[in-house]
Amino acid sequence: MIFLNESGIKEAISMKEMIDAIDLSYEMYHANDFLMPTRMQITHNENTLLIMPTVMEEVIGTKLVTVFPNNVNIPRLHGVVVLTSNATGEIKAILDGTCLTGFRTGAVGGSAVRHFANDTSETLTIIGTGVQGFYQAIAACTERPIKKIKLYNRTTAKMPAFISRLKQEINSTIEITAHSSAADAIKGSDIIMTATNSNEPVLPNDPHLLKNKLIIGIGSFQPKMREFPEALYDITDRIFIDTKDAIEESGDIHTPLKNNWIKEQSVQTMASFLASNEKIKKENGKSIVFKSTGMGLFDAVTANIIYDELYY
Amino acid sequence: MIFLNESGIKEAISMKEMIDAIDLSYEMYHANDFLMPTRMQITHNENTLLIMPTVMEEVIGTKLVTVFPNNVNIPRLHGVVVLTSNATGEIKAILDGTCLTGFRTGAVGGSAVRHFANDTSETLTIIGTGVQGFYQAIAACTERPIKKIKLYNRTTAKMPAFISRLKQEINSTIEITAHSSAADAIKGSDIIMTATNSNEPVLPNDPHLLKNKLIIGIGSFQPKMREFPEALYDITDRIFIDTKDAIEESGDIHTPLKNNWIKEQSVQTMASFLASNEKIKKENGKSIVFKSTGMGLFDAVTANIIYDELYY
Repeated sequence: MIFLNESGIKEAISMKEMIDAIDLSYEMYHANDFLMPTRMQITHNENTLLIMPTVMEEVIGTKLVTVFPNNVNIPRLHGVVVLTSNATGEIKAILDGTCLTGFRTGAVGGSAVRHFANDTSETLTIIGTGVQGFYQAIAACTERPIKKIKLYNRTTAKMPAFISRLKQEINSTIEITAHSSAADAIKGSDIIMTATNSNEPVLPNDPHLLKNKLIIGIGSFQPKMREFPEALYDITDRIFIDTKDAIEESGDIHTPLKNNWIKEQSVQTMASFLASNEKIKKENGKSIVFKSTGMGLFDAVTANIIYDELYY
Repeated sequence: MIFLNESGIKEAISMKEMIDAIDLSYEMYHANDFLMPTRMQITHNENTLLIMPTVMEEVIGTKLVTVFPNNVNIPRLHGVVVLTSNATGEIKAILDGTCLTGFRTGAVGGSAVRHFANDTSETLTIIGTGVQGFYQAIAACTERPIKKIKLYNRTTAKMPAFISRLKQEINSTIEITAHSSAADAIKGSDIIMTATNSNEPVLPNDPHLLKNKLIIGIGSFQPKMREFPEALYDITDRIFIDTKDAIEESGDIHTPLKNNWIKEQSVQTMASFLASNEKIKKENGKSIVFKSTGMGLFDAVTANIIYDELYY
């Protein structure tokens, strides 16, 4: 049994390979080639322990994650991924689940950039400059020739540290600017990525500011959470989700469907889109939306690829 | 976060302290001072993944165990215990679950020896000489002045290795003998411990061979499994269980209740027995029975005590 911490994971796999792993997960999702029981969720006070096992042909990957929303000065999310052989039951590896979750969630956003962003996309906006926003930015820069990153966060205390950490991971010629409102941060941007835990929309409710963009939301993972404003649903009829569970789990899909802001036919899984080999047509005045709530399959597939990268 | 393998665990805690930890678990069970959701069980082909989280005031302990019954030459059971702070969600430690399970299950048997065996018990029988039988033997020797251990196993190939490993762990003056039948192995014995995965009783169906003993079963953890014969239930009205779940989970409790071989009043949890401070009266011709199916609380409590032993 081996233990892989953050530096072990990052030595084993690049962001590009991580995005490849996410695309492979969509292929497996489409083929239904795995067993993913409903995740176990234990809530105690305001804190949650989530347990997500995924059985694949060769391995079983189980993610344990704690979410402690009131943590101050330490991350709110902690976890491990336990990778078990499905031939013998032996524990093959234990991976730092905090790092793997951030990294693979970045790659989920990166896969949406790969498949939906204009080839010439140069300006990126990140709303929410926490751990998840950090990996989203790296993933977008991996897939498109980004020249400018515009940042917005509700609080600004940690913004300088975020910028200095991000500079170490991306091309040093990329300009990074902090903005005092989301409206300002998304002006002129090609790709917008939201990575907050907000219960209220974090983007301005103005269709003119939201049109002709790729908008990626990875924050809202509960029905009461929302990052996208109502106006966004007027200018999109292409909403992609990483798993069917997003329809029930995310307020950004659940609420619009319930309120008839969108039709069910507008919502499609990435797995079925990729399997169809459709070339997406960009319509002027419209935006493409991708919404992720995540799934254990991503953790199991990426953990297994990292292990194989190191030991085969 | 630290990782504790077998030698780390054994350096941190003795069998006597482990039995103390089991008795502490019973106190907590009685006080209902924890949250233990129904365990998650994923069966794939003939193999099982069990996930057992237990929330306590300070920590959350989650055990992941795989049971691959067809494994040859490698253990059938593999696992880890993940110990998480219930104040911050941070991962405090990951412990080798294979070792911890064997060690704490030994201590569960050891606690029954502590509370029910005659002080003068000198002869011990172990039926089933696998990993679990090994720890049961050590635990019994910790609690009583055992002079003779009689062994029986269905197959004999691994018996010499079992004996030589056991000799390293117990007083070298203890005589160890292998027997060709369970009936022979239990003759003259004070304490009988069964640790098999059998679906059929492994003890002889003869009340004369079974009377005036302490009989401890730790094998049968599913309704179709049984280690105890019908005759045993004629000579006992004191059956102790480690958790109420044993009534549904173990064929050694479930089948006798269903068939009216015993009355429900004869079955009592260890937690309620210990809380009552009752002094047990031994009746001539009768035996005392203890049956364990295990529970996540044992893993969480023992893992936390091991961690505290090392880091406080």
